[in-house]
Amino acid sequence: MKFSFKNDYSEGCHPNILQALLQYNLDQQAGYGEDEYSLQAKELIRKKINNQHSDIYFVSGGTQANLIVISSVLKPYQCVISASTGHILNNETGAIEATGHKVLSIETEDGKLRTSDIISVLENHSNVPHQVMPKLVYISNSTELGTVYTASELEELSGFCKKNNLYLFMDGARMGHGIMAEKSDLTLEKVAALTDIFYLGGTKNGALIGEAIVINNPSLQEDFAFNIKQKGALLAKGRLLGIQFLELMKDDLYFDLAKHANEQAMKIKNTLKERGVEFLSDTYTNQIFPILNNDLIKILLEKFEFYVWKKTDENFSAVRLITSWNTGDEAVDDFIEIIKKELP
Amino acid sequence: MKFSFKNDYSEGCHPNILQALLQYNLDQQAGYGEDEYSLQAKELIRKKINNQHSDIYFVSGGTQANLIVISSVLKPYQCVISASTGHILNNETGAIEATGHKVLSIETEDGKLRTSDIISVLENHSNVPHQVMPKLVYISNSTELGTVYTASELEELSGFCKKNNLYLFMDGARMGHGIMAEKSDLTLEKVAALTDIFYLGGTKNGALIGEAIVINNPSLQEDFAFNIKQKGALLAKGRLLGIQFLELMKDDLYFDLAKHANEQAMKIKNTLKERGVEFLSDTYTNQIFPILNNDLIKILLEKFEFYVWKKTDENFSAVRLITSWNTGDEAVDDFIEIIKKELP
Amino acid sequence: MKFSFKNDYSEGCHPNILQALLQYNLDQQAGYGEDEYSLQAKELIRKKINNQHSDIYFVSGGTQANLIVISSVLKPYQCVISASTGHILNNETGAIEATGHKVLSIETEDGKLRTSDIISVLENHSNVPHQVMPKLVYISNSTELGTVYTASELEELSGFCKKNNLYLFMDGARMGHGIMAEKSDLTLEKVAALTDIFYLGGTKNGALIGEAIVINNPSLQEDFAFNIKQKGALLAKGRLLGIQFLELMKDDLYFDLAKHANEQAMKIKNTLKERGVEFLSDTYTNQIFPILNNDLIKILLEKFEFYVWKKTDENFSAVRLITSWNTGDEAVDDFIEIIKKELP
Amino acid sequence: MKFSFKNDYSEGCHPNILQALLQYNLDQQAGYGEDEYSLQAKELIRKKINNQHSDIYFVSGGTQANLIVISSVLKPYQCVISASTGHILNNETGAIEATGHKVLSIETEDGKLRTSDIISVLENHSNVPHQVMPKLVYISNSTELGTVYTASELEELSGFCKKNNLYLFMDGARMGHGIMAEKSDLTLEKVAALTDIFYLGGTKNGALIGEAIVINNPSLQEDFAFNIKQKGALLAKGRLLGIQFLELMKDDLYFDLAKHANEQAMKIKNTLKERGVEFLSDTYTNQIFPILNNDLIKILLEKFEFYVWKKTDENFSAVRLITSWNTGDEAVDDFIEIIKKELP
Repeated sequence: MKFSFKNDYSEGCHPNILQALLQYNLDQQAGYGEDEYSLQAKELIRKKINNQHSDIYFVSGGTQANLIVISSVLKPYQCVISASTGHILNNETGAIEATGHKVLSIETEDGKLRTSDIISVLENHSNVPHQVMPKLVYISNSTELGTVYTASELEELSGFCKKNNLYLFMDGARMGHGIMAEKSDLTLEKVAALTDIFYLGGTKNGALIGEAIVINNPSLQEDFAFNIKQKGALLAKGRLLGIQFLELMKDDLYFDLAKHANEQAMKIKNTLKERGVEFLSDTYTNQIFPILNNDLIKILLEKFEFYVWKKTDENFSAVRLITSWNTGDEAVDDFIEIIKKELP
Repeated sequence: MKFSFKNDYSEGCHPNILQALLQYNLDQQAGYGEDEYSLQAKELIRKKINNQHSDIYFVSGGTQANLIVISSVLKPYQCVISASTGHILNNETGAIEATGHKVLSIETEDGKLRTSDIISVLENHSNVPHQVMPKLVYISNSTELGTVYTASELEELSGFCKKNNLYLFMDGARMGHGIMAEKSDLTLEKVAALTDIFYLGGTKNGALIGEAIVINNPSLQEDFAFNIKQKGALLAKGRLLGIQFLELMKDDLYFDLAKHANEQAMKIKNTLKERGVEFLSDTYTNQIFPILNNDLIKILLEKFEFYVWKKTDENFSAVRLITSWNTGDEAVDDFIEIIKKELP
Repeated sequence: MKFSFKNDYSEGCHPNILQALLQYNLDQQAGYGEDEYSLQAKELIRKKINNQHSDIYFVSGGTQANLIVISSVLKPYQCVISASTGHILNNETGAIEATGHKVLSIETEDGKLRTSDIISVLENHSNVPHQVMPKLVYISNSTELGTVYTASELEELSGFCKKNNLYLFMDGARMGHGIMAEKSDLTLEKVAALTDIFYLGGTKNGALIGEAIVINNPSLQEDFAFNIKQKGALLAKGRLLGIQFLELMKDDLYFDLAKHANEQAMKIKNTLKERGVEFLSDTYTNQIFPILNNDLIKILLEKFEFYVWKKTDENFSAVRLITSWNTGDEAVDDFIEIIKKELP
Repeated sequence: MKFSFKNDYSEGCHPNILQALLQYNLDQQAGYGEDEYSLQAKELIRKKINNQHSDIYFVSGGTQANLIVISSVLKPYQCVISASTGHILNNETGAIEATGHKVLSIETEDGKLRTSDIISVLENHSNVPHQVMPKLVYISNSTELGTVYTASELEELSGFCKKNNLYLFMDGARMGHGIMAEKSDLTLEKVAALTDIFYLGGTKNGALIGEAIVINNPSLQEDFAFNIKQKGALLAKGRLLGIQFLELMKDDLYFDLAKHANEQAMKIKNTLKERGVEFLSDTYTNQIFPILNNDLIKILLEKFEFYVWKKTDENFSAVRLITSWNTGDEAVDDFIEIIKKELP
């Protein structure tokens, strides 16, 4: 079996989680997220974000979280602003539009939105009532290109959104990786203070399934549970989500796992950089996009699985390498060894 | 802690499942249901239903299965026919309507639909194009009242639907209990042969989460996966669902668990019947609705949790008792003991 | 050609309207309802309802008005309460559900909702968040059975809705007929004061097309125009609607036309009553449902068109007779003459 | 009052239409499009397109036609391909997305789609089932920029769509202008032969309201009327639409009106071209976009109304001038006179 750098959800879950599932397995608990594990996990998250007034709901996956959040907070004629690389635009089979809402796409270099981008959308949508009304700004951290927002970038976006009566929603499918990136000065507490709503991804950071939707803006909290149920996302055995987040939040396991994933990617990145390899984007998280000679790619694919992302010229292509909470030193060392041998 | 007869999803999952999750945990597998466990589990189901041409998809829960199936097979102007007790009508926060489809409600005594019911709906919906077009017949087995369809009843419904160009869809959230009921002559093979589409519920029969949607009618199979993804139901770690159904289907664990749940309920039912207690409906599955004196209910509630379902007169109420794959003899014996003492 | 009592939209429009369309035809006017005729017509309506703060929008038809109003004011998990005879339940091809909202049906004798009906719905929808949330009460005046609400009945409903945080919406496709009914003590001013939103039907009372949506509750007014446009209801030549309502509202033509229609129906009704004929419901508007001998029906159908509504026994059926703003004395007299001859 | 070149729906309708409405006004007719005028108008259209098997439905406006067509022919996971200038993308308040379908936007120079554009969309949407499935190609003729498709361009698109299992839908809000353009070799018959579905716009070509949806692909015809009704587009007095199309189709009035509008625009265009004025796009229909000096624009705006479309540099802006069936020689001559004076 080749080792896979294809994504961060190839394995099961962190062993602590399975241990906890075993330990609590035969307790009788209330259904639908009212179990004691879910309640405790929510308390832990509220502590980490330092906001006792945020409402928290656990759902199964990222597409589900995105469609529930967006369809819940928007009125029928309101729409979303997203970078063109946004997950909701490219990889969710039109899930947002299926709830009735348009997603406006903005071209960006690095997957990050800036206020200037949003201003131009607002200016182009002033023909009331003939155009959709932009109302929610969707950003991802880390982004789909592996880049991250700094605290000051997020502050600027947040201030702009407040002033312009827009909601700011952060897709945190890879929130751990974003926050734990070497260059990041964001904390979960800041994320919560600066966004109206965000979610904390478990699936791509050591859980079996699970994302924690955190609603900071009180005006978006009312009746939110109805939306979860209506979209088929309310698990009868909510304990499955609660137990996982309880384990991930306890002792900061969530952040340690993300840090590990980032570090493994950085080892490979640094080895490549030392050899003058260029990258599609300059990332410090668990996704890297080095531009490699096609011959080298062929050699690497004999021992590893990963996506060839994009042809850059006749002889070179960018590849996408993703590491995870479970990417061991052996796989990374093997990969690096080939690099060192082929690019001496 | 009081023992709960409130529902069949109070505990975690059957130990075999956790064992398998542990065993396969660190294997790298393809995502989105392409893992080898999911593929094997589908093969096992195809064998049990004796139909190599059925398509199978695993999703997380019953509401999700219902809304995906119905929104996938209907055109915008088509609607559903359901018994008034149908889960989609009462307990899914309008999930079906949220996908754009009306659900027509038919009053029934026992939660089961009959062809005469459907005929009258068809007759009342002939004002083309001013009325919705009835197109899908939704039935549950076992029903929300604990009753079951016999093979001949299902054959009649199936023949009628074919003749009238209607789809027949069976909600099998409690399929195991329905099929394993003392009085049932249905098999999974017959269910598959007689319905266009159905699902096999895991959540209420020993899984952590999971329902297996089985599409028998080839005209409904095309592109179904798009719908799963669009509704947020495609788990990145599809292995979580695959491993569970693999364990449940192996050696018929699924059916054994349901049989156990039914038997525990029948023990209580028979004890009550011997004492002349009446029931809301005559059920042979894991749900029973005895009509008890309010004083007796109060005594039982001191030691057990269960729902008081419906006041029947000044002094009596029907209660709902649900047993599960994990309801042990001790709880049942304790309950019976109180009955015997109070109704000597 | 037989004269038709089938409905109140068999003819074109009142001649004044065509006259005005001719007169203003070649003026250049702003599009999308910003023309001066629309603005004047809205002012006239605001005067009649004695509320300068109501927002008014013109749309083409009743189904369109219903689906725009309901989808605009409800959140995704909220639903409608309607009498089982409600037009939205039976004759709009699931238009409301197609916007994502369930309509709960209440059986009534006479097509009118009462607070006791609503209370029982609220009691049966308390299982948060597993059930849809009832939020809007839909009533019609006159109803689909030709009956009308009295001022005190509407006051009671209105008070109840306010207290229970429900919106009250009146479908006024036949508002003129309702208000001008012999027994009615309602006025348009009272309707506006007691409902959150209602509409004034033109199509069934002398216009070519057109219903005027009147939004009295300020919290429902914001951004309403977006919904009109999004649902395809914003006419480029809004003047077509404005001119019609201008003519209908001027000099109370709207009410005179409805009064005429009612009176023609009452002439037939009284003739039948004097002969001991019974009716499905006791109506004072332009719809009557006499129960006639099948032989008599056959004789009448030789000279007139109307719907045979419902078999009441072996020899008798209820028929529906509808008169309109344009039903002349000759047709009514001819009809009465046959009655007098056959039921001497 | 200044004369307006803002759009082609500033006036009422062609006098023949009002004359016919008057003439037929008091006939009793069947409702909902079953009146004899609608039936005759459909026959006339079938003759013009030389296809007895096309189904035809009349609706009120363009947004309505677009949303009904698209939501009727697509499955939930299918989407639309449109030029970025498409009316559905920019000026319909998200009406298509509100029915659940994404619209993919393609940048073009001239508002026209080419097969190469579509090929690249198909290539970028191959990640089944994680992306929406492109299924319908939406084009406008004339386009929103006033340009037109030639017969051979449409043939190429049509062939490509058939080969790739895509539907081809032509928005014909300005079909008359497109077909009657000086450089156009398209006929209505060819349009019908080469598209699966299209509509013929009345609103912008002399009607009060009305677009005729023509369904040529038999597989899209089944049950279409249900969609019309469900979206609130089925007028009770369908005669209003039927009579208008009857008049417009009789003696080719529809085409004469469009030709007149085009000619008036060409007179202005030619005057400007002779003076070296440049245009945003090279159009031969009733929309022109000359680039004028801001001083000249100011002078023109003293006597005329029109939209300043887009700043092109410090001193120049493109303006949009639209002529209509009713734009008289006087207005055009006055406009030209100013041009001649200011640009001698």
